[in-house]
Amino acid sequence: MTLRQVKAAVLLIGDELLSGRTQDVNLRAIAKFLAPLGVQVAEARVVADAPEEIVAAVNALRAKYDYLFTTGGIGPTHDDKTADAVAAAFGAPIGVREDARAILEAHYKGAANLNDARLRMARIPDGAELIANPVSKAPGFMLGNVFVLAGVPSIMRGMLEDIAHRIEGGAVVRAVTVRAKGVREGAIAQGLADLEAAAPQVSFGSYPWFTADGFGLHLVARAADDAALAKAGDDLMDLLRAQGAAAEIVQDET
Amino acid sequence: MTLRQVKAAVLLIGDELLSGRTQDVNLRAIAKFLAPLGVQVAEARVVADAPEEIVAAVNALRAKYDYLFTTGGIGPTHDDKTADAVAAAFGAPIGVREDARAILEAHYKGAANLNDARLRMARIPDGAELIANPVSKAPGFMLGNVFVLAGVPSIMRGMLEDIAHRIEGGAVVRAVTVRAKGVREGAIAQGLADLEAAAPQVSFGSYPWFTADGFGLHLVARAADDAALAKAGDDLMDLLRAQGAAAEIVQDET
Repeated sequence: MTLRQVKAAVLLIGDELLSGRTQDVNLRAIAKFLAPLGVQVAEARVVADAPEEIVAAVNALRAKYDYLFTTGGIGPTHDDKTADAVAAAFGAPIGVREDARAILEAHYKGAANLNDARLRMARIPDGAELIANPVSKAPGFMLGNVFVLAGVPSIMRGMLEDIAHRIEGGAVVRAVTVRAKGVREGAIAQGLADLEAAAPQVSFGSYPWFTADGFGLHLVARAADDAALAKAGDDLMDLLRAQGAAAEIVQDET
Repeated sequence: MTLRQVKAAVLLIGDELLSGRTQDVNLRAIAKFLAPLGVQVAEARVVADAPEEIVAAVNALRAKYDYLFTTGGIGPTHDDKTADAVAAAFGAPIGVREDARAILEAHYKGAANLNDARLRMARIPDGAELIANPVSKAPGFMLGNVFVLAGVPSIMRGMLEDIAHRIEGGAVVRAVTVRAKGVREGAIAQGLADLEAAAPQVSFGSYPWFTADGFGLHLVARAADDAALAKAGDDLMDLLRAQGAAAEIVQDET
């Protein structure tokens, strides 16, 4: 049985990612979270805190992929524009929802501390399901095939704990990585292309590395078929040994 | 005189960025390189080593922004598809160019070592200008408003040294960052929104931080007008002091 490929996109929202103020780490965390569930991230975008940009990206990506994950822009300040933009993308009304308000009231110890700004975090589009936030309580939400998560990495990762049961994954793609020292890409490029041509169900990648004590390559094979992947790992080792290079399998990762 | 805003997009190319194997650091490096030149990064995308995805993204982004910077996919292996895809996006022929071949021949110490795989790195679209690579020699190129750079961060940064003189920048946007401890976003959100409404030429952002010894906020003001920016910094300090919070200006960055 061949399981279908399930693909997701990631939309990172925030001026701070585009100005260089903040180094994104959420894309990688989401990719590593989804891979074992049988979902591959196939595209990502980074847009500013600009409603029209968010709406356009949400609509392009939710139509093209099985799932879309957004991060950022769901806090209490004026530059948090994601919830309203996602509602607009779906043409859904949005307002303060009582179950979300209750979560915030409990967290802020009473309605008196729940000022207008904090109450913005209870604005949820009609038809959405809440996503629990075990770190700072203000929830994310799922609307259609779109998961709307926080931007702060620790909070985003906390929200992922409430995601897996909502995902219908497909084939799990696994990877084998071979590390070789003292080999340049140009020496093995033809052999690698031959492997790729001979194994259409395997995807091969080549990534040079440079450190203080030398240089070399990581060669990566990725496939949903475990037998094909094991053979690909052996083939990569043979390819590198034929160059007289010391090579080792350094990690098996999903 | 008000200089116009000049905007760029960044297109990061590579399966390894989407699988989570590799943490991108090029977006931030490009943003920090461009800011002092008067160019703001306004959007970024990450796509796989898939020609049709690269072509679509290149054409969407080069039409929408003043400049487009791509990283990745210009090495010698089969998964390096960027040069051909950029040529296809422009409808430009592509082939081995003699000046690029000469650079590689010198680097690999003669034509005998320049195998077919390495020669792929001399494939340059018609009409492009080469971008020098001080690290590993194989050049990048500029075609129209598109800069095609390597994906390995050290090589990418080396290529940026041959970019600045080709950029016509506009207004330089600078930032002031104020760090405050023990303040939550909900407490200052209304005040921050009031500042934003009163100073339309300034963009304000709020970014919570959490460390082992506490929590707080970074409040950031960004503007091309230095006087407006200085006032915004003062206003942010006043806003935080009104909360009884210890606050300090931690950096002035472009």
